[in-house]
Amino acid sequence: MFEKILENVHSRTPLVHCITNYVTVNDCANIVLASGGSPIMADDINEVDDITSLCNSLVINMGTLNEFTVSSMIAAGKKANQISNPVILDPVGVGASKFRNETMLNLLCDIRFSVIRGNISEIKTVYKGNGITNGVDADKRDYVNESNIGEIIELAKELSKKTGAIIVITGAIDIVADSKKAYIIKNGHPLMAKVTGTGCMLTAVIGSFCGANEENMLEATAAAVCTMGLCGELAFEKLSKTDGGTATYRMYLIDYMSKMTNEMLNEGMKIKMS
Amino acid sequence: MFEKILENVHSRTPLVHCITNYVTVNDCANIVLASGGSPIMADDINEVDDITSLCNSLVINMGTLNEFTVSSMIAAGKKANQISNPVILDPVGVGASKFRNETMLNLLCDIRFSVIRGNISEIKTVYKGNGITNGVDADKRDYVNESNIGEIIELAKELSKKTGAIIVITGAIDIVADSKKAYIIKNGHPLMAKVTGTGCMLTAVIGSFCGANEENMLEATAAAVCTMGLCGELAFEKLSKTDGGTATYRMYLIDYMSKMTNEMLNEGMKIKMS
Amino acid sequence: MFEKILENVHSRTPLVHCITNYVTVNDCANIVLASGGSPIMADDINEVDDITSLCNSLVINMGTLNEFTVSSMIAAGKKANQISNPVILDPVGVGASKFRNETMLNLLCDIRFSVIRGNISEIKTVYKGNGITNGVDADKRDYVNESNIGEIIELAKELSKKTGAIIVITGAIDIVADSKKAYIIKNGHPLMAKVTGTGCMLTAVIGSFCGANEENMLEATAAAVCTMGLCGELAFEKLSKTDGGTATYRMYLIDYMSKMTNEMLNEGMKIKMS
Repeated sequence: MFEKILENVHSRTPLVHCITNYVTVNDCANIVLASGGSPIMADDINEVDDITSLCNSLVINMGTLNEFTVSSMIAAGKKANQISNPVILDPVGVGASKFRNETMLNLLCDIRFSVIRGNISEIKTVYKGNGITNGVDADKRDYVNESNIGEIIELAKELSKKTGAIIVITGAIDIVADSKKAYIIKNGHPLMAKVTGTGCMLTAVIGSFCGANEENMLEATAAAVCTMGLCGELAFEKLSKTDGGTATYRMYLIDYMSKMTNEMLNEGMKIKMS
Repeated sequence: MFEKILENVHSRTPLVHCITNYVTVNDCANIVLASGGSPIMADDINEVDDITSLCNSLVINMGTLNEFTVSSMIAAGKKANQISNPVILDPVGVGASKFRNETMLNLLCDIRFSVIRGNISEIKTVYKGNGITNGVDADKRDYVNESNIGEIIELAKELSKKTGAIIVITGAIDIVADSKKAYIIKNGHPLMAKVTGTGCMLTAVIGSFCGANEENMLEATAAAVCTMGLCGELAFEKLSKTDGGTATYRMYLIDYMSKMTNEMLNEGMKIKMS
Repeated sequence: MFEKILENVHSRTPLVHCITNYVTVNDCANIVLASGGSPIMADDINEVDDITSLCNSLVINMGTLNEFTVSSMIAAGKKANQISNPVILDPVGVGASKFRNETMLNLLCDIRFSVIRGNISEIKTVYKGNGITNGVDADKRDYVNESNIGEIIELAKELSKKTGAIIVITGAIDIVADSKKAYIIKNGHPLMAKVTGTGCMLTAVIGSFCGANEENMLEATAAAVCTMGLCGELAFEKLSKTDGGTATYRMYLIDYMSKMTNEMLNEGMKIKMS
């Protein structure tokens, strides 16, 4: 299903400009490399234009905001829009502070995003301009399950219509939607929540997949979500044969991204149209 | 001995706000998750109040200071004091520069700390307002041993009286003291010094343990110190059966934090009252 | 050949002040520790003088520049020059933005470097003051091979004459040259390019080796390059016996640095004078 998507990532080696948080930046760089892309982390206002111009996509991650990097995010986003590069937003922890909410609104106002990825609480906050968040994790009351999934998909489609972006909601069940179509993806493993930055890493991988597949970003994004989730499953399977813990699990996650093939993905992905 | 402490960490999932250095921040986030807590790293002056208000504890780590984060540390610390959240200080490398010494004095002046953790050189510098430090490692002349331990415990108790904080001195022998009581802990392994940030990680874990055990912080802190040290021992035991080096050791350390149980801790801890 | 070099690193425990990027800083700290040194990361203008004065060498890495750290780099570099400490430059991604090019020129103008290490594209940019770069990776057209190696060595020697620094060009073939002598080193493995920061890590290790061997920096630098490359080979050998990916490979890399001995290095190094 996603043969061409993965082949493009591997053959085109997309350059991915990341303006991201300092907590998970190393994992983001390593997983972009593992996916077949090449990451460049640069966040100074004096160079983000030049760097974005060299690249195939831009990833903006709000994990550890400050006033300097916010200016750089906006400048880089505008430049990427100007040269029609995909721009991916990860509104980490939006809802947890006024500063994050305002920054999110400014980013949405100034930049056209190709993809916005968050957990359900973050995406609801983007949708409503407010919401209850529990730090950087999703609020339990918000969890996507079989009974509320139809409603959540509608929310995703509407937000996509409003923003023009593909909307990705990740959790036990993942949703990837534009204004018309939605994929439901059931790859992944609960242990991923015990490793910091698995969301950030997925967003970076979406940057890599979209950077190599501009002509087909909905499928590229869905492929990235399946791939990351499958890595989480394979990593857990391997972990359960050893006596490792969460740090070993994190290593296996990135390992599997570097070993992913179309065969593995075809066999393992759990995706359907809604 | 610490059954309730660990149970509380696991059942309450304390949110730990960390204003910490960019060197070891990822390990700190992962070990807080591994311990049962949930980390939030945020250091911009525009949001630290909001973030701290969401959380159960605040960890201030001086590893890579700059003027922006120092302001944020003070604002967050005051807020945490106001809402009676535990505040933990890791005065990394204090003594190594005037800027660190002055920052430490400003932090101590503006914030009431619940716990201060450092190596013996750092704690002596906090005590005296000066001291000889050897970069970020303890000076060998300062090492705690059987012959000077009584004296060091007195210093810890006095510093606790002066600051109102529980004092943690880590090294080959660890001391956890308030103004009246002191625990002597002999868990740990020398190889921990060959991994950057094992001190920072312990401080973050103390943040997690105290965030879930506000009513009993001396015991929570002692439990965190035992747990981290025991992880160091178990990791070394596992390492010695493979041919790994210090990077594998670091992974095992965090792994064991994620697998720690009351049974393991009861069997492995080496703690006594002084 | 390098017995004394390694012995000095292990016995002198050089303190290495790193002003480096936030992407790979944790790996740099851990590999300096693994090599036998002790890292201190500090980049605030208020303390870099004090920190550099404590240390045996200074590493300046341009990976994630900003105006604050550039000022700190210059202040620390001048201080290190004043007290005759080795200063190592890693001009990461120079050529990718005007800001990096200008910063590089400012650094070269204000600081006497002992060693400059980059890939061939970066070193050509340093040489010419311009050049084509492909983000942070070397441009394929620039790759060092058997047919152009003589030319590249001449370039390295000339740049060494111009700057007074030992020049290190890393890639499939590595070159370490001063104005008169050049070593050709064929250690290393292509998979190293799939882990972020292997270049940064090597530069940090050069800081450790030179900090302990000021009297013999050309050999210290060559030894560091051989050692890092050999770690890459040994890590790959170990990886090929398991089913790990790039994250496991990164761990093995640092592991081998922590286990390196003169016997291993003598047996594995592939070095000759040009």
